[in-house]
Amino acid sequence: MENHASGFDAAFHALADRTRRAVVTRLMSGPAPVKQLAQPFAMGLPAFLKHLRVLEDSRLIVTEKQGRIRTCRIRPERLLETEAWLAEQLALWRASTDRLAAYVENEMSEDDAA
Amino acid sequence: MENHASGFDAAFHALADRTRRAVVTRLMSGPAPVKQLAQPFAMGLPAFLKHLRVLEDSRLIVTEKQGRIRTCRIRPERLLETEAWLAEQLALWRASTDRLAAYVENEMSEDDAA
Repeated sequence: MENHASGFDAAFHALADRTRRAVVTRLMSGPAPVKQLAQPFAMGLPAFLKHLRVLEDSRLIVTEKQGRIRTCRIRPERLLETEAWLAEQLALWRASTDRLAAYVENEMSEDDAA
Repeated sequence: MENHASGFDAAFHALADRTRRAVVTRLMSGPAPVKQLAQPFAMGLPAFLKHLRVLEDSRLIVTEKQGRIRTCRIRPERLLETEAWLAEQLALWRASTDRLAAYVENEMSEDDAA
């Protein structure tokens, strides 16, 4: 439970940055080597590697070294969990607006009857 | 575009904390006064108010003062946007795994033909 909560903390924290979100979006289409991933961003490699580290620590991505090339790929489980949490919240909200609508409708038909 | 990106930064940052996520979950069922919201949490009111401020700054919630009572309610738009972004990422991932499956299937049937 505690671990699950810190897992969400780490995932949401990792996604709270546009560079890291762009890396996630890129990796959704398939794995990529670090150098290729870094290319579109106007920052030095050390700064970019820090972003990758945050993504890796949050378990949103995993990196593997083969020979001299380090490749990154997405771990969809974490994103699936995060999306499931948000969907659950929105389901609660929809249920509560439905209840409100039913209440208002009921009140209005009672007014009609009076 | 820039504003939209910082909007996501703020929303994900706000959700990267279990107290703030618990407040969001509570408010999904309807508005609540600050005092009632603070009750389940083992922290002083000033610390709790800081969390509310982060949620308010991220536009996940809005607070209104009527007389001496400050009430909080959810702003579902921001959560809907955040969930839509995650759903979009997962759709990219599903498309890419479908392409991979189609490729493997194709390769295997070519092997059969050979």
